Amino acid sequence: MTSISDKKVYKFGNGSAEADRSMRDLLGGKGANLAEMSSIGLPVPPGFTISTESCRYYTESGGKWPDGLEEQVADGIRHLEETLDLKLGDPERPLLVSVRSGAAVSMPGMMDTVLNLGINDDVARGLARKTGNQKFAFDAYRRFIDMFGNVVMGVPHLRFERALEAVKEEAGVESDVDLDAEHLKDLVGRYKAIYRKYTGFMFPTDPQEQLRLSINAVFSSWDSERANKYRRINQIKGLIGTAVNVQAMVFGDMGETSGTGVCFTRNPSTGEHKLYGEYLIDAQGEDVVAGIRTPENISKLKEQLPEAYDELVHWTQKLEEHYQNMQDIEFTIQEGRLFILQTRNGKRTGTAAVKIAVDMVSEGLVSRRTAVEKLVEPRHLDQLMHPRFRNPKEFQDQVIGKGLPASPGAAVGQAVFSAVEAEKAQEDGRKVILIRIETSPEDVGGMDAAQGILTSRGGMTSHAAVVARGWGKPCVAGCGDIVVNYESGSFTNGHVTIKEGDWISIDGSTGQVIRGQQTLVPPKMGGDFDTFMQWVAEFQDMGVRTNADTPQDAERARTLGAVGIGLCRTEHMFFEGDRIIPMREMIMATSEEERRKALDQLLPFQKDDFTGIFRAMDGYPVTIRLLDPPLHEFLPHEEEGQKELAEALGINVEQVVAKVEALEELNPMLGHRGCRLGVTYPEITEMQTRAIIEAAVELQSEGVKVLPEIMVPLIGTVQEFENQKSVIQETAERVFAEKGSRIDYLVGTMIEIPRAALTADEVAREADFFSFGTNDLTQMTFGYSRDDAGRFLPEYVDRKILEEDPFQSIDIRGVGQLVKMGTSLGRSVKEDLKVGICGEHGGDPASVSFCYDVGMNYVSCSPFRVPIARLAAAQSRLTKEPADEAVAA
Amino acid sequence: MTSISDKKVYKFGNGSAEADRSMRDLLGGKGANLAEMSSIGLPVPPGFTISTESCRYYTESGGKWPDGLEEQVADGIRHLEETLDLKLGDPERPLLVSVRSGAAVSMPGMMDTVLNLGINDDVARGLARKTGNQKFAFDAYRRFIDMFGNVVMGVPHLRFERALEAVKEEAGVESDVDLDAEHLKDLVGRYKAIYRKYTGFMFPTDPQEQLRLSINAVFSSWDSERANKYRRINQIKGLIGTAVNVQAMVFGDMGETSGTGVCFTRNPSTGEHKLYGEYLIDAQGEDVVAGIRTPENISKLKEQLPEAYDELVHWTQKLEEHYQNMQDIEFTIQEGRLFILQTRNGKRTGTAAVKIAVDMVSEGLVSRRTAVEKLVEPRHLDQLMHPRFRNPKEFQDQVIGKGLPASPGAAVGQAVFSAVEAEKAQEDGRKVILIRIETSPEDVGGMDAAQGILTSRGGMTSHAAVVARGWGKPCVAGCGDIVVNYESGSFTNGHVTIKEGDWISIDGSTGQVIRGQQTLVPPKMGGDFDTFMQWVAEFQDMGVRTNADTPQDAERARTLGAVGIGLCRTEHMFFEGDRIIPMREMIMATSEEERRKALDQLLPFQKDDFTGIFRAMDGYPVTIRLLDPPLHEFLPHEEEGQKELAEALGINVEQVVAKVEALEELNPMLGHRGCRLGVTYPEITEMQTRAIIEAAVELQSEGVKVLPEIMVPLIGTVQEFENQKSVIQETAERVFAEKGSRIDYLVGTMIEIPRAALTADEVAREADFFSFGTNDLTQMTFGYSRDDAGRFLPEYVDRKILEEDPFQSIDIRGVGQLVKMGTSLGRSVKEDLKVGICGEHGGDPASVSFCYDVGMNYVSCSPFRVPIARLAAAQSRLTKEPADEAVAA
Repeated sequence: MTSISDKKVYKFGNGSAEADRSMRDLLGGKGANLAEMSSIGLPVPPGFTISTESCRYYTESGGKWPDGLEEQVADGIRHLEETLDLKLGDPERPLLVSVRSGAAVSMPGMMDTVLNLGINDDVARGLARKTGNQKFAFDAYRRFIDMFGNVVMGVPHLRFERALEAVKEEAGVESDVDLDAEHLKDLVGRYKAIYRKYTGFMFPTDPQEQLRLSINAVFSSWDSERANKYRRINQIKGLIGTAVNVQAMVFGDMGETSGTGVCFTRNPSTGEHKLYGEYLIDAQGEDVVAGIRTPENISKLKEQLPEAYDELVHWTQKLEEHYQNMQDIEFTIQEGRLFILQTRNGKRTGTAAVKIAVDMVSEGLVSRRTAVEKLVEPRHLDQLMHPRFRNPKEFQDQVIGKGLPASPGAAVGQAVFSAVEAEKAQEDGRKVILIRIETSPEDVGGMDAAQGILTSRGGMTSHAAVVARGWGKPCVAGCGDIVVNYESGSFTNGHVTIKEGDWISIDGSTGQVIRGQQTLVPPKMGGDFDTFMQWVAEFQDMGVRTNADTPQDAERARTLGAVGIGLCRTEHMFFEGDRIIPMREMIMATSEEERRKALDQLLPFQKDDFTGIFRAMDGYPVTIRLLDPPLHEFLPHEEEGQKELAEALGINVEQVVAKVEALEELNPMLGHRGCRLGVTYPEITEMQTRAIIEAAVELQSEGVKVLPEIMVPLIGTVQEFENQKSVIQETAERVFAEKGSRIDYLVGTMIEIPRAALTADEVAREADFFSFGTNDLTQMTFGYSRDDAGRFLPEYVDRKILEEDPFQSIDIRGVGQLVKMGTSLGRSVKEDLKVGICGEHGGDPASVSFCYDVGMNYVSCSPFRVPIARLAAAQSRLTKEPADEAVAA
Repeated sequence: MTSISDKKVYKFGNGSAEADRSMRDLLGGKGANLAEMSSIGLPVPPGFTISTESCRYYTESGGKWPDGLEEQVADGIRHLEETLDLKLGDPERPLLVSVRSGAAVSMPGMMDTVLNLGINDDVARGLARKTGNQKFAFDAYRRFIDMFGNVVMGVPHLRFERALEAVKEEAGVESDVDLDAEHLKDLVGRYKAIYRKYTGFMFPTDPQEQLRLSINAVFSSWDSERANKYRRINQIKGLIGTAVNVQAMVFGDMGETSGTGVCFTRNPSTGEHKLYGEYLIDAQGEDVVAGIRTPENISKLKEQLPEAYDELVHWTQKLEEHYQNMQDIEFTIQEGRLFILQTRNGKRTGTAAVKIAVDMVSEGLVSRRTAVEKLVEPRHLDQLMHPRFRNPKEFQDQVIGKGLPASPGAAVGQAVFSAVEAEKAQEDGRKVILIRIETSPEDVGGMDAAQGILTSRGGMTSHAAVVARGWGKPCVAGCGDIVVNYESGSFTNGHVTIKEGDWISIDGSTGQVIRGQQTLVPPKMGGDFDTFMQWVAEFQDMGVRTNADTPQDAERARTLGAVGIGLCRTEHMFFEGDRIIPMREMIMATSEEERRKALDQLLPFQKDDFTGIFRAMDGYPVTIRLLDPPLHEFLPHEEEGQKELAEALGINVEQVVAKVEALEELNPMLGHRGCRLGVTYPEITEMQTRAIIEAAVELQSEGVKVLPEIMVPLIGTVQEFENQKSVIQETAERVFAEKGSRIDYLVGTMIEIPRAALTADEVAREADFFSFGTNDLTQMTFGYSRDDAGRFLPEYVDRKILEEDPFQSIDIRGVGQLVKMGTSLGRSVKEDLKVGICGEHGGDPASVSFCYDVGMNYVSCSPFRVPIARLAAAQSRLTKEPADEAVAA
């Protein structure tokens, strides 16, 4: 048997604690947090935590308690009784407690919470007397039997539920709340009978017995099949057991001097530094969150219970100082006495996150480093860049309702009334607004698929509001002006009825619901955003480039902090305007000579493109990828277009059709594309190189600083790269000779074929730089065609076969392994090899963090994701470097 | 300067040598071989080899000879002079020598051979007097100037060629051989002038000077740009320089007691133990090989030059004993004296290889181990399995010519007259016979593409014959009955004219050329083949399984030595007969219920299939792969078939069309296939598992030993595997319960997605075995669609971007790296994990050898390749284990 410490129980409450948050391993996450809160003096309901060592002993000994545990638990209960002047099992001054499991890592399979432990017939009666509220007392009692029976003894909840339904039917009432005290007493009797029938035992009336059984149930749940399987699959090792938290119950529903609420230390929508929240008098916590009664604004509490309010304000301040972050607080007032049940970092909108970060720095609460590292998440910046309505005045006569401005930003879409419909619409590429009475966790898929969310019930802290804010998705919540009818698939404000499929617009910043498709304008940044991004720059040591094919995109990204172009695709250039004609001539050519003639016509266009981009990126490197897609993508596939092309080229339409057919491929993704085109048609590579080098040489003579990096796509063997490199070098030398002037340029390659990563040492001998094309690398490493994977990928994510869509966030285990391997093999032969990434992953914070860990020189992403990638890069660095190291300010 | 041994020159000849074949590093490959041949007493023309150390000294010192080299070279020349009673530069008894480079590894860029060194004006005249053949003497002289000028001094060969053309034109002759002595004397003068003009020096008349310049040229060529680049690219390290071989010239064209020939110690076509070869009296070596004069059969030499013949027979025996292999010998008889110029292991047909191996063992010349390890190449067995004509008597009136039976086996195809046409035909899927007057190395592509080769000129050792035998491709050579006309694209025997595209048949075992498309029958094995394969089994320690979908294939492979089925594809089974109807119903189903109904109809068919295969493989494991291809492959894509299907199912044709369209994929190779089908439609996996397990349980009760291994295809994540494994296990348990009987079975997976190899440790925790599907793994590792790669892959191989088609022989560097990684990661968590391969590579000898090195348990290949894979497996083992270890017999 493993040895065990003498101290097995750690008390907290009454402004102090025997532990702190560093003791997660021994006390679990929950226990450590409760200790931490108590230790700073916070009025949490008193309690104690039984150590994880005790759980290990219990498991190893086959169900025994270690010596001393019994006494220490009794001592813990005494601590609760003394602090609150109550007594477990005493009908006059009854102490009720909750029992919860809590390991160092949260996991499914562990025992759920038991509340109201300590009630028996006598105590229930005493409680009724004391509160003058029989209904309260017997409702608590019957809930306790249900919870204890289900959670501790495994009685199916459904059995209790059926008895409840029966009593309701007999009483002729529809809702639980309509049951009176007698009904509830009747229920208590029925529940006890169910308990006895199922377990074979009488329901335990001794609170000490209730407590012992509950603690054992927590211990046993550690060793349950489900918990063991979860730990095995997720390779959770090194944990020895779960802790048990026993805490005094406090009640907000004990009359007019009691209440319960939630609040944020600052406004989570706007960031305004002002207490923000809601409460209900004479209510339980669930009542606020559930949105059944509409809660009061927190400011009203000052009038109703001024002392409790002042104390709350006092603690919000302390908590921000202690946790160095805006806090989301749950509190209960029991007969005028404030208890803080929970505090955690508050969810917030992007606007709020940035404002709070900037404010907290100027208030001297946090350092710039903390602001950058902890107060703003990369996705928050995305929200800042969300659209607004162009001119709200325009549509004021179209407003059909007003709800709570639950999550800012404007959205437009067709009305749908279920999550399923929203997801279907997304698959069809339609934009929708999801309209629900309330939302629940099973709606999240549809909420994600929708442009915005509208609910007719619930407050600012309702499920819909919290989730939407977290995602930065526009949401109008609790819009009481409207009535939603799921059956008919419509909602109405009495005058106007909106049916499924009708267009509506919502403004999550004002709470307005508007008919029709209102015009959106892109967001405007500046102010706090600029200040914050300047701080980001101080801590950012990995570059962020952009993927841009036009001077406009390049300039936009530059203003957002991009330090170069990581991927300039050249194929898009061939579709613009009339250019497609010589491009098609080139493809239709039957000899190198004809092909060259067509390419000569394309040369000036390409050169113009590069001139514009180089100029926009003056002083910064520009990585240009040579032609990548298969040639058939440039040919018309409809009869009409084929006829036009035949006329333009003066040939038969049959010839065009024949060429289209000849170029068709069974698996174009794995076909004749990328550098394979350049190898078979070197004249294409020559033309592109000439356009790049001519543009660069000419701009240099004007004083523009040009740093071209020519990138060969889709190489799988170093020989392919050598082949293309020599075409590029020979062409460049010819241009230099013609112009009588040279420029510096690099020739590198995409690493996007698994084999290129596997043989990266060979490739690096020849290549000046690597850029990981993780879109294609993901396709080939998984064997998923991005175009076709829609048939099974969503199901894979739903069924947890994949944790995430690997095209959204890099698959670190598989694709990431090739990226790491490619980078280290490459650098094993060329120590200072420049390495970057240019797939969609370059704008995904988790992927950016991975790239940072790999040691990349830069990531490249679309212009609007540049700030996000920059923040992710800075945070990656800060989480790696201890705070006391001198990073900067 | 690196230190150098005192001894710098190693003499050989006259039946002894100062070195042997172990001294490759010091004397190069050629020098070591010459020493070896001399040391066993063989009458090679005497010579000496200058060490590679001397070359290193020369390079390091910037062109100086090390001390003592000059004296030792002089001593070497004296050795030649004394052995042959000749003298360098003496017009009366002139010694002529050759100078050749020779490093330990042969490489391009090294100096070519210089022949006839030692000639000047006096010597040429002396030679003419001595031989009475002025033409011979001055032809040798002008050839020497050309060779020396070109090879040693870098004068372009074309300059000499132009002078030759001019002289021929002036003389009014067309062929070189028509020039008389005066013309040749004239040419010598012109050549000297060209030499002087180009080099600025007089042509060196002093043979010592000629020798010194030639040796220096060899030394310098080591450090040439081309040689250095080759060594760098091929990463050839550790070599210090090239050796220089100086050897006396001997002449077969010095009259009626001189001659030259090539012979094999045994018949290379049949393996018969009898000297086999050809010679020409009064001729040089090139004359025999070039096929310009038709040579005599070696047996005639016995009459013409009996002493030389007896000596030759004596040495062939000795050589076989020494080299433990059949030898291919080049010899020259100079005025009655036999010289053996070269001996090497002879190329042979498959039949010959096996017969020679069996004979040499029974003659006591070699051990069984040597026979298996060295005397038969895996591809030889392939040749044994080549087709014959069903009944040659049938077509005797169709025979239009008879040539040499140059390479056995029968072939049928349309006539083509150029290599290019042959290659084109192969691309079109047409079978052709390539007909040429003679072939040359630039024809090999077309020879490979053809079913067989027919030439009108050249002997058994002509290019066409040698190459075809090496490949086991039928060849009729030197068919003088026919006249080939490239221009009109036809050949004729005077009566019958065969035009391009007409069908002909050839028999490489009889030499017959036959009109029309004669019937082929598959080859018959047995006799020596069986004996040899029994020996193979003694040394084979890696299993060879077969890929088979039918009981017939399974049985055939079993008789060829397969020890199980490594890949039984189940999808082919759905196309047979009427089965496609329920299969299509299954695909068209719109609910799980409908799908199950259709699957129920398929179940008995599948079960029958497995019953047959299990029975055929009684006692051996059978790996069954679950459904792999995308479902659209089973639907009709033409209107007619779609109509039929609609009728059969009683639905609209529009519904069929809609389904076909819905299932279409842009990149089906990367689409909804493999286990992705099983995950989305678990009922398919259930049906297949049920068929397998029911068949197995029932057969077991009959006493058949069934070892089913169920294989999940295309997994990329362990979660996919777990999902399918649980469906399989649950189904199997249900069947066991129903049948009241259990069997043992395994559940494993294909590793064919790069990610599966990269995460093989995770996968191996759940999987009972791995089978590498290297076809798909190659597709995804390279990003090549096998269906589409034809557009660039041949060009890639031609241009050496790829050394070989990676679908033919495994790409060890890239794909092989994943195979190694997958195997070792898998075994890192499951030490005894069974690992095999089931791609096309399983039948490729180089790939089998790779699999052996990786430590696989088995390879699996198509039935007819089983013997090849078995021999490759045995040889892989033997080359790894030193001969003196007790392996077996």
